[in-house]
Formats: sequence, C-alpha cells, structure tokens
Amino acid sequence: MTIADRWLLPDGMDEVLPPQATRMEELRRALLDLYCRWGYDLVMPPPVEFLDSLLTGTGTDLDLQTFKLTDQLTGRMMGASADVTPQVARMDAHSLKRQGPARFCYCNPVLRAKADQHQGGRSPVQVGVELFGHAGLEADLEILHLALSSLTVAGADEIHLALGHIGIYRALVQSVDLDDIGQRALFEAIERKSPGDVTTLVDGHVGDVQRAELLKALVTLHGGADVLDEARRLFDGAPTAVIEALDQLQALYRGVAEMYPGATLYFDLADLRGYQYHTGMTFAAYVPSYGQALAKGGRYDDTGKAFGRARPATGFSMDLKLLASLAEQPPIADGIWAPVWEPGQAMQELPEVIARLRDAGERVVQALPGQSTGPEEHRCNRRLVSTENGWQIFPLT
Amino acid sequence: MTIADRWLLPDGMDEVLPPQATRMEELRRALLDLYCRWGYDLVMPPPVEFLDSLLTGTGTDLDLQTFKLTDQLTGRMMGASADVTPQVARMDAHSLKRQGPARFCYCNPVLRAKADQHQGGRSPVQVGVELFGHAGLEADLEILHLALSSLTVAGADEIHLALGHIGIYRALVQSVDLDDIGQRALFEAIERKSPGDVTTLVDGHVGDVQRAELLKALVTLHGGADVLDEARRLFDGAPTAVIEALDQLQALYRGVAEMYPGATLYFDLADLRGYQYHTGMTFAAYVPSYGQALAKGGRYDDTGKAFGRARPATGFSMDLKLLASLAEQPPIADGIWAPVWEPGQAMQELPEVIARLRDAGERVVQALPGQSTGPEEHRCNRRLVSTENGWQIFPLT
Repeated sequence: MTIADRWLLPDGMDEVLPPQATRMEELRRALLDLYCRWGYDLVMPPPVEFLDSLLTGTGTDLDLQTFKLTDQLTGRMMGASADVTPQVARMDAHSLKRQGPARFCYCNPVLRAKADQHQGGRSPVQVGVELFGHAGLEADLEILHLALSSLTVAGADEIHLALGHIGIYRALVQSVDLDDIGQRALFEAIERKSPGDVTTLVDGHVGDVQRAELLKALVTLHGGADVLDEARRLFDGAPTAVIEALDQLQALYRGVAEMYPGATLYFDLADLRGYQYHTGMTFAAYVPSYGQALAKGGRYDDTGKAFGRARPATGFSMDLKLLASLAEQPPIADGIWAPVWEPGQAMQELPEVIARLRDAGERVVQALPGQSTGPEEHRCNRRLVSTENGWQIFPLT
Repeated sequence: MTIADRWLLPDGMDEVLPPQATRMEELRRALLDLYCRWGYDLVMPPPVEFLDSLLTGTGTDLDLQTFKLTDQLTGRMMGASADVTPQVARMDAHSLKRQGPARFCYCNPVLRAKADQHQGGRSPVQVGVELFGHAGLEADLEILHLALSSLTVAGADEIHLALGHIGIYRALVQSVDLDDIGQRALFEAIERKSPGDVTTLVDGHVGDVQRAELLKALVTLHGGADVLDEARRLFDGAPTAVIEALDQLQALYRGVAEMYPGATLYFDLADLRGYQYHTGMTFAAYVPSYGQALAKGGRYDDTGKAFGRARPATGFSMDLKLLASLAEQPPIADGIWAPVWEPGQAMQELPEVIARLRDAGERVVQALPGQSTGPEEHRCNRRLVSTENGWQIFPLT
C-alpha cells in the first residue's frame, strides 16, 4: 500500500479544516440560537436506526441513498441516517408524544450512499426545524420566516424563494382516468417541464378534454407572482382542492411579502419534489452565488402515522457545510503569544496571568520549549512580555 | 410489520431528547470555547473514510469496532469513524502539514459496531484535543491541564486522575528473552493484574532472574504517589528507559499537583491500555459518580508516519453524551408566551414586538390558532399581553 492510499478520501466525504470548521461552528450556534428564541427544542436523533424505521413515512424515497449496516447484536439491517426529518417525525409520534403544537430543531451529520446532486457531498451536516401538530397556514408562515431568517444569519443578502403546492398536481391527476403507467410517465414529463411530452401523454389518453387542458397548463405555470393570477384564470373549473391550494399560496405570498419584503418570490406550480410525502406547500430558497437550493421544505402531514400517531407537520432543512462555505473567511490573527515557562522570579506569576486572560475570553497560545515557529504561525497578533511593571501585552510589530 | 418494529432503536444507538440535547449543546460550546482559548483550532474529520486510512497508525486496534461500508463509486471498502484520533493524526500529517507545534480540537459523532463497555453506547459524540509536534513534558502537562479543566467545565467537583507510562512495561519486556507467545501471555496476565499468573509466566522462562523480579514487581505497582518511590526502589537496576519513565511521571505528578491541587492522583504503572500506539505517559480521569473513565489520553508519537510524516503527539478524548448525562438538569421554564396574531389595531404591532424580544435574546413562543396547549406546556414563565399602555410582559400566575 502506498502512503497516498492512506490519505485519499472517498469522493464527497470531506474533512473541514481551520478556519472553515470554526466558521461552521459559529453558524451552527447562530442558527440553533435563532430556533431556540422561536421556541424550538433541540433534539438529537441517533446516527443509525433499523431500516424499518428509517425508510418509513417521509423516508420511503431514501432507500438508494441509505448506507446499510448489519447489526451484530441482532442480525437486523440498520441504516445510517440519510435524512433527519423522518427521524424527528418518529420522535414526535413516539418518543415525545407532546400535546398541541410541538417545535423541534436539530443539527446532525448525515450520510448518503450517493450524492444528491453533482456538486453535493455525501456527508452533509443537516440543520433544520420541524413544527408538528398544526395544520394552519400560520405554521407554514412561521417555517418560511425561519428559513429566510436562517439564510440571512448565514450572510445571504439576496434571497430567492420558490413556492409550490403539491396539492395542485395531486388533485388534477386524481381527477382524470390515467392508469399507473400513464400517471408515471406524466409525472416525469411534468418533472422535466416538457410541455410537448405532457401534450402527447394527455391528448387522446385523458377522456375529460377540459381536465387534459388543465394538466397541459400546469407545466407552464412558473414565474413571478402573476403566475397566481394566470393560474386562477386557467384553473377556472378545476377541482376544489386546486382552488384551495391557490388560495393558500396567495396567503403565503402576502405573508412572506410582509415579513421579508426583500426576498424575491417565484412560483412553480408544477414542482413535484418530495411528491411521495409532501402534502401541501413546498418551497426552496436560493442565493444568486449558488445554483442549488440552500433551504428546502414544506408541509408533510401524517407521516407520523407509520409510528402510531398521524400529525400535521411542516418544516425545512439545510446543509450546514454548504451554508458555511458560502461565506468563507480568511483566518483572523487574534491571540496573545505567551513565552515558555522557565524558573525565575517573574515567571512565578506567568501561569496565573495566562489563566486570567483566558478566563476573560482571550485566546492565549503558550510557546513550548525549543519550538521553531512564532506568534504569526499561531495566529497571534499580540505578545505577553515581562516588564518592570509586571506582565504586559504588546502588539506584534 | 408492527408499529413497534418501526420505533424500536438498535441497542446503544440512542436518541437525545429535550432538555438533554440542549445540555449537550451547552457543554459542547463550553468545551470548544475552552480549547479555543488555549489556541486549539477546530477541525472536522469526515464521518467515513477508506478502511486503509482508518485502521492505520493509532487505528490498528479498531478493526472489530468499525462498521464497514462499500463505496458504490469505487468499490473500495470504507469504514465509519470509530475514533477521531487517527483521523486527526492523518490531517496533521497530510492535510495541514504545519511547522512546529500544532494544536487541534474536535467534536464529532462516531459509530461503534460493538459497545466499548457494558454501559457504553455505540454512538458516542467524541470530543477532545491533540497536540502534535512537541515531545516534551510541557505538552503532556498542557493536555492533562485541559483534561482536568474539561471535567470541571462539565460540573465534576471531585476528580480522580490515574497516570501510567507505557514505556515501563515496553522497556522491561524488550530487555528479556521471551518469545512472542510468552510475551502475549504475559501482557494479558499483567493486563488483568494477576501476580500469580505473572510469576508462572516468568519464573523459569525469563533467563535473567533479576529482570524476572522486575516484571513480577510491575503488576503490584498501583496506588497513591508513594508508588513512585516504591518503583524507584524496586526498579533499581532496570533499563534506563524505565528510570526515565519514572522521572517523567514524577515531573507530571509535581505539575498536576501544582495546577490542580484538588485532583486525587493515582498511579498504575502496569496500565497497558492502548499499548499498540501509546508511546509515553497515559492517563484516565474519573469522577466518583461514574465507574468508567470520562477522559482518556496519553502520548502516541509517530503515528502520523503511516501518512508520510512522523510527529510527536499527545492528547485525550471524552464522550460528550456521557459527560452531559452526569449532570442531567430538569427543564427550566424560561420564555414568553405570545398570543395568536389576529386582525385588529393592537395586533398591528405584535410581530414587531415579538421580533424585538427575540433580538434581545428572549425565547418567545407564539400561539397558533386553535391550539389547546398553553404557556406551561411550552416552558414559558411569562406572557405578552396587550394593555392600554401597549404590549407588556407579565409573569404567569
């Protein structure tokens, strides 16, 4: 084995070096503090669970992404957590069983057998919030508020928010007579936003010509707030659930515009992300410097049912690693360089002087005997020096 | 599948609920802040690496403890990190390549295929520090100081510190003519502190009778500081390396007694923990309320060699989950209960009032329409009320 075989890292399993690791820690603290001030309680799901727990409810899509492990104690299959959300849903339904609305936040590393997207890693640190037990738009608005605030805390000054509602497609497709294969093909055509394919798949296959037109219209409905007006016009005569979904989007639009006037809103009524588990509004937040969504979330009611308790649920999550990398910072020299301790009069006080400085929050790096590197290499900008008037701190010259 | 199959957790893969998760977060912050003030830079090794990296150097003992995973991208075997120390050694030797002493700290969840000990979990959160590039006792003393400070930060008021030195046994066994099988048996007899077995294994098998007596003496040398005097007497005529190790322990004893006069010191010269990679002093710190060591560490020079750069190294680590569980705290009700937003004159100001309170660091839980639970269930001790004089905060009665 060559030495290179020993230090090579698997693709997407990154190490975080200084000062980036400190930047991540600071952002972690800022985000968890934000969620705490909104009344969200920190929980820490286990890094590994039995597959039966992980791939249930919102986790059904996660099979290919989940690393499988054999439990040597029971022989049962376990999986490394690839998404914290289904775990928190299990905790809400079974471990915590709170009455009324329950708010939880988390910041847990997860593992993915395959990367989510081209630039994505396989070892994100997932940070997010979930609000269980309330089905109203107020809960969704609180989640949107927190998602936008999170990006602001991370240093984003221009935020683009894309809103969708899984109920529109669901109601439309349930109202027509397509078989499973036809539905699957239509789903994929809408997912890749291909009006031509959608036309081919519905014309002659969907009996109700008016409903067929609605499906063809859906794939064109993305853009600014005028998309909502356009949708109301086109969806005249659509199932009630479609009209209700539009009402909800309109209300969320007003709410977001009021609380975050700076955010640019965008609508995508044909967004089918998380179709397996989302039940209402969905959203993704972007910043101009990065092509992928930084925060993704939405409503996913009743996923706790698999664990014995169906509850309304809404939330979002982000990758802390990615979020921290948006604002990489140069290392800052801030610290006091203290000399090696040696026997002698003035030296008697040195340990105490250093302890006092550290208690006051200062970063103090003490030299070790014979070391060749100096204060600059150790990010110090000041030096502790013994003078006639005792120990004093001087800036490095 | 029954519902119980879905919420059952694998043995030792625990979830952390509120308020314990918050306690862990607070302790994490206090410890990382402490290390930062001493000049330790935070690093974050990957949760998964190739087995060739993980089971090298200090990691050779970890094979049975490491969960194995197949990398779908390369077909190579990977492992989930079971111990952060070998990873940080790799980062020091290869990724960071700093000149002179380098100080690193970390706080990473790790996974273990088997629990370390009876009460131990399989998903600890490993927190610790490593000091590379300095072979002197000053570095070891700094590590001991940080280990004791860490337990103090975690709330321990009575600390027992057991000190050993792997060089004593190593020099003694290398100075006698035992074959591999004999060495292995002797190692195990000393590990289980069995003077009878040691006598059987050396008498008649070790040619040098005087050296045989030294090995028999070793297993009896554990206890308070007088063990060091006793060792000096018994080890008169031992190899130089043994005498040097005793000198080092004596100096560490003086150093610890000076900086942490409250700690109870204990010596175990036959402590063989981590014999594969430790090269000098070893230690374990205990508190009376818990039977297992809370902090374990020592010197492990040259393990970076496997990654292309041999360096002196010393450090320690702890399990944050365990450490936080020593001081479980009851949930504290501290928060302001805000009413549901409704249209109306006074309500216009409500979002702004709540935002101001949160900006000032207050925890504000806003009620959602129709919710049945009240401020007590959401750990609030105050209430935001609209009065003639605007919004005011009142204690809950």
